[in-house]
Amino acid sequence: MQTIKEYVQSNQERFLEELFALLRFPSISADPKYKEDVVKTADFVAEKLKEAGADRVEVCPTAGNPIVYGEKIIDSSLPTVLVYGHYDVQPADPLELWDTPPFEPTVRDGKIYARGAADDKGQFYMHVKAFEYMMKNDALACNVKFMIEGEEEVGSANLGTFVKANVERLKNDVIVISDTSMISMEQPSLETGLRGLSYVEVEVTGPNRDLHSGVYGGAVANPATILAKLIASLHDENNHIAIPGFYDDVLELTAEEREALNQAPFDIEAYKADLGVGDVWGENGYTTIERTGIRPTLEVNGIWGGYIGEGAKTVLPSKAYAKISMRLVPNQDSHRITNLFKAHFEKIAPAYVKIEVKPHHGGEPVVTPTDSIAYKAAEKALEEAFNKKPIPTRGGGSIPIVALFEKELGVKTVLLGFGLDSDNLHSPNEKYGIENYLKGIETIPSFFKYFAELSK
Amino acid sequence: MQTIKEYVQSNQERFLEELFALLRFPSISADPKYKEDVVKTADFVAEKLKEAGADRVEVCPTAGNPIVYGEKIIDSSLPTVLVYGHYDVQPADPLELWDTPPFEPTVRDGKIYARGAADDKGQFYMHVKAFEYMMKNDALACNVKFMIEGEEEVGSANLGTFVKANVERLKNDVIVISDTSMISMEQPSLETGLRGLSYVEVEVTGPNRDLHSGVYGGAVANPATILAKLIASLHDENNHIAIPGFYDDVLELTAEEREALNQAPFDIEAYKADLGVGDVWGENGYTTIERTGIRPTLEVNGIWGGYIGEGAKTVLPSKAYAKISMRLVPNQDSHRITNLFKAHFEKIAPAYVKIEVKPHHGGEPVVTPTDSIAYKAAEKALEEAFNKKPIPTRGGGSIPIVALFEKELGVKTVLLGFGLDSDNLHSPNEKYGIENYLKGIETIPSFFKYFAELSK
Repeated sequence: MQTIKEYVQSNQERFLEELFALLRFPSISADPKYKEDVVKTADFVAEKLKEAGADRVEVCPTAGNPIVYGEKIIDSSLPTVLVYGHYDVQPADPLELWDTPPFEPTVRDGKIYARGAADDKGQFYMHVKAFEYMMKNDALACNVKFMIEGEEEVGSANLGTFVKANVERLKNDVIVISDTSMISMEQPSLETGLRGLSYVEVEVTGPNRDLHSGVYGGAVANPATILAKLIASLHDENNHIAIPGFYDDVLELTAEEREALNQAPFDIEAYKADLGVGDVWGENGYTTIERTGIRPTLEVNGIWGGYIGEGAKTVLPSKAYAKISMRLVPNQDSHRITNLFKAHFEKIAPAYVKIEVKPHHGGEPVVTPTDSIAYKAAEKALEEAFNKKPIPTRGGGSIPIVALFEKELGVKTVLLGFGLDSDNLHSPNEKYGIENYLKGIETIPSFFKYFAELSK
Repeated sequence: MQTIKEYVQSNQERFLEELFALLRFPSISADPKYKEDVVKTADFVAEKLKEAGADRVEVCPTAGNPIVYGEKIIDSSLPTVLVYGHYDVQPADPLELWDTPPFEPTVRDGKIYARGAADDKGQFYMHVKAFEYMMKNDALACNVKFMIEGEEEVGSANLGTFVKANVERLKNDVIVISDTSMISMEQPSLETGLRGLSYVEVEVTGPNRDLHSGVYGGAVANPATILAKLIASLHDENNHIAIPGFYDDVLELTAEEREALNQAPFDIEAYKADLGVGDVWGENGYTTIERTGIRPTLEVNGIWGGYIGEGAKTVLPSKAYAKISMRLVPNQDSHRITNLFKAHFEKIAPAYVKIEVKPHHGGEPVVTPTDSIAYKAAEKALEEAFNKKPIPTRGGGSIPIVALFEKELGVKTVLLGFGLDSDNLHSPNEKYGIENYLKGIETIPSFFKYFAELSK
């Protein structure tokens, strides 16, 4: 029997080719015109699960994009690991900023450049290949179930229904998700929390039609100007979010917890240089690590209104829009926050405009206890693979569905992520290190092994 | 010999058909892809000038779109009228808001619906048809020169060069422009001033790439948020423009002048109802008529940044943009204002973003003295056609090139406009009344007659 190291060594070319094939599908869930590609991607994933040795593989239809399920139950007395991932990806625009086409994976400096390379195709596929190894080498230490969905990037609207309807089939002892990042290949880390999300779209209507800015300018409220004033008022002079009640439920960390969090290696100058910014920005009284990990935030994800084409048009627009999302921390509730935002935005809007706030999707924050068996198993597996004990961190991202899993399935989640913050998730030139990909495949079987041992 | 009334009566079908043919050209100067249509439009205008009886008709090439010139010199001892107009039009978007296609002229309730119907094809073409009448009926009371350009909607970048190079050819005693509006068909009016214009595009750059708003949100300045704060700060709580020095050169009107200006019939409730707004907005201490006529303004004509497509994308954008224009009043200088804006915008921008301010185009404000021969001739012509003395008004629009004409050619300008503020200039469903069109054709020969008489 081969060790996982040997197996990865002798199969890495194929592991890369298969991932490239997966990355070539433009499975963009936000844009309906890619629906067909999304379905093809699901079929591809199901095929690969079967080849790896999974049973009961099924492409489960939903009201939206299908969910791919597969499992291997070897012994009902062994613990069961549920692997969750998503095969859908973010839109690739702005396309002109990609150095190579987003759906033609290209390797440069040992990194795979493609939309979805790290988020999440490259990461969930590590589990498929690690599973293949364990099957081929009779090394499967736990039962395993796969649930790979196609709507994570648009809020997993139909996954909740699926989970509720399949509680028995999905029954497990721990959920493992590789859809986050670690500090570096030299310093492994484990995310112990995810932020929740509230995402809204606002529409500000001024006059009932676009107007000539010379004839009406200065006499009628311009919705773009009003929207700017409204957005400007959402952060106060300390960059606190100025929505009444917004922080009411925020779980404040103790001085010790904040101290520990700030132990993670972080070079502010390197951070600024990487982003090309003259200075960082954020809520006064908190470090950058705290601002992205343990504090809620409000960001404008998109804004538009009036004439945005070539040249000059002297128009006073009828409407202006913005997409705004808020990241939430433990104890905040996404529905309550969405309602607070809506009420506040409608309240501060002046009489001369009309406001519409449309909730997009949301999710609740989660925390993984560092004293749980699952966390300890992941910790040992990473230490073994990297020869260094991982640091617990708080990631800023959200996987809205995790809170629902934990609620419906009554288990905790381990965030076994192998990406890096510099992987350009959701940005042009998204990438994933070949080394990260292979190291992840190498780490997963040990996690299974230690989880089984510690569960005894 | 036919009277102009009779001639319009017997030729109105043809007058409309010819205008419709002109309106069918999508001569959008702001968008390079319409270049060919723009050139075809110029050729069409030249053809019509020849048919009407003009000599030395020429489609004069420029660095941009061609300028159509034509003239009729009947007697060097007679005064010369220079007719200026533009055959280019504003972009038609948002297309989905048009009830009928912008370049398929359609008549509803006696109005011609098409992009350019009032601004300015329908209005300059009245002069071509009035000229045709005067030629056919030996009624031309002045020499006449036509200069119809194709870049008015994008700032007439090349007209200045043309005018400077053709001072002799363009020599005249008065410039007549029909590219403005009057109060109503029941209450004619004459615009005695035009506002100047300063048009800039601003680009705010935060991080050097689009970022994942979960990973970086709250820790890096969001250029959309910063742009919103910057725009919000451009008007103070009284809606005064908060750019230091902005009002320095503004010519304040006397109480009497403001009194006279506010005599013009204006129904604020009808105004609000027409625009569908709950309330008007503007600079405290001034009426709506004053806000659009004698006060400078600053408007956001377009704003964009981040993800503006379907669905949700959790991105923290690298860049955000806005197109901003300022309308200027007598004694303000567009270059000085553009520089003040640039300096101010760069000064208030925080260290964590980069700012670029690109000037688009500008123009200086102008005033037509009500005691000039030209104004009096226009006044008499309108009174004769409408059986009512026109009221002098201050239009809010800008025809940037007028100040340059006056400077280079040493003459004043008469704004003989027959449009209405409700014509949806620069908006979907732009229209021009058939009655306005025919009434304009009927009025122009009298203007020529009275101008010749008063010039004696």
